[in-house]
Amino acid sequence: MKQLHHVVVAGLGVLGAQIAYHIAYSGFAVTGYDVNQESLDAGRVRLEQLRDRYGTRALDRDPVKAQAGFERITLTTDLNEAAQGADLVIEAIPEDLEIKRSFYAKLGPMLAPTTIIATNTSTLLPSDMMDATGRPDRFLALHFANQIWRHNTAEVMGTSATDPAIYEQVVAFAKEIGMIPIEIKKEQAGYLLNSLLVPWLMAASSLFMDGVADPAMIDLTWRTATGAPTGPFQVFDVIGIRTAYAVSAAGDATQQAFANYLKEHLLDQGKLGVESGEGFYRYPVGDDQDLGTDGD
Amino acid sequence: MKQLHHVVVAGLGVLGAQIAYHIAYSGFAVTGYDVNQESLDAGRVRLEQLRDRYGTRALDRDPVKAQAGFERITLTTDLNEAAQGADLVIEAIPEDLEIKRSFYAKLGPMLAPTTIIATNTSTLLPSDMMDATGRPDRFLALHFANQIWRHNTAEVMGTSATDPAIYEQVVAFAKEIGMIPIEIKKEQAGYLLNSLLVPWLMAASSLFMDGVADPAMIDLTWRTATGAPTGPFQVFDVIGIRTAYAVSAAGDATQQAFANYLKEHLLDQGKLGVESGEGFYRYPVGDDQDLGTDGD
Repeated sequence: MKQLHHVVVAGLGVLGAQIAYHIAYSGFAVTGYDVNQESLDAGRVRLEQLRDRYGTRALDRDPVKAQAGFERITLTTDLNEAAQGADLVIEAIPEDLEIKRSFYAKLGPMLAPTTIIATNTSTLLPSDMMDATGRPDRFLALHFANQIWRHNTAEVMGTSATDPAIYEQVVAFAKEIGMIPIEIKKEQAGYLLNSLLVPWLMAASSLFMDGVADPAMIDLTWRTATGAPTGPFQVFDVIGIRTAYAVSAAGDATQQAFANYLKEHLLDQGKLGVESGEGFYRYPVGDDQDLGTDGD
Repeated sequence: MKQLHHVVVAGLGVLGAQIAYHIAYSGFAVTGYDVNQESLDAGRVRLEQLRDRYGTRALDRDPVKAQAGFERITLTTDLNEAAQGADLVIEAIPEDLEIKRSFYAKLGPMLAPTTIIATNTSTLLPSDMMDATGRPDRFLALHFANQIWRHNTAEVMGTSATDPAIYEQVVAFAKEIGMIPIEIKKEQAGYLLNSLLVPWLMAASSLFMDGVADPAMIDLTWRTATGAPTGPFQVFDVIGIRTAYAVSAAGDATQQAFANYLKEHLLDQGKLGVESGEGFYRYPVGDDQDLGTDGD
């Protein structure tokens, strides 16, 4: 039996819009909030595109069901209005600790004391924000993957202050919206997926930078030996070269050399990975190939 | 056009026998050498099993072709006899630097000066053995994967002393026997595959040891997000728990804790991974599931 009925999604960027639409599509009343009219209008366009995608190419491919989902979404720039009656707020605003903390400090007093808050942060730790929410026991991370209709995992990660009953409620909610809940038992930067991906990607980029082998050979090795559909440089293309650049630029000397390579050979030529049609490899225009990493 | 005709495989253990049989099956004359009659007899049994496997379950499933391959193999314990007329010697003897160096010191003077030597070492560096061969320019690593008929990669890795023309000859030979050559441009411990696998496996075992998530959840995350058929703990089962133990016991405190876990919860109960029918997971008896890592 549903314990959460009315969900607010704050921030209607690429992933925020997917979260909002997918939850509404799954039968919940959703309020989509964004900070100003311009952002909200951009969010509305994304929601319409998602409706069309679900109606024709994703999940049930049922235009009627897709439209019904769309109609369960209310949009507003008024946070106080959004907060009314919310059982769960999912925060998908920019990935900046101070922006998130300020948002929570403003939101918290507007919410009923029973409202649960979940952050969709990719890289920050919920424990660094929990006090700002005014309800650390009802606060946790619920991390979705880009292309939510295809990569249907939701990493659920509490802090030491999260009430286990709340954690279970959010796990149950994740199942209700068709997600496979990845239950993380202890706070971990990068959750599970990035904790596995990053060392693997770094090993691959180091082999390349050290002149041991080219990306195509490294990818071939991985695919052939493990049966995986994609090797690490294909994954870089999916994650996006901009994200790969940002991560490697913050690394050691070898990783910085890789960042320079990415800038010079890819970014400066507008090769952003799958999203632009070319990265380490070329992709057909409109290719949906994608990995469950994020972009919130 | 074939440049190498007569191939010696030294060491008929699990992988050595596969290499010998597969090359003979591909049409080459093969001499299988092992150090004494007992080892040679065990090798012969392995070769017969491979003939039966190829005849019924692998590649062409053609018993006549499989038998013809078997008949192209000559077995001997006489190294001098094995050395005569060899175009290429593939060394697959125990993974110990001194054993390998002694073997090369004995073998080198028996060979024609034109004979190429390739080591199938998994973990050692060819540059640490090359002087013992008496022909560093004609020496390199050619690293096969277990279940060669399925995991048909051959990592080709020279040293700084390897003649590029010899390297290319061995790459061409690898293709002639149906391998996908993984061309490694610079000496690298662990070649490409282990260089990618080890950091990924360590990240997974650390998440488990740190109490962040269980193996099943970690594997689920990887499979779901990347579309790969197996997560890291499934790969541990394929590699074998004994190997996983040996590698992690040599690592840092977290990895040593993982080694202790493996010993206490798996090895001491005879759970060796896929090979024994149980490791982190249970497997049907006779399951061929396997990854392209080794065991030479």
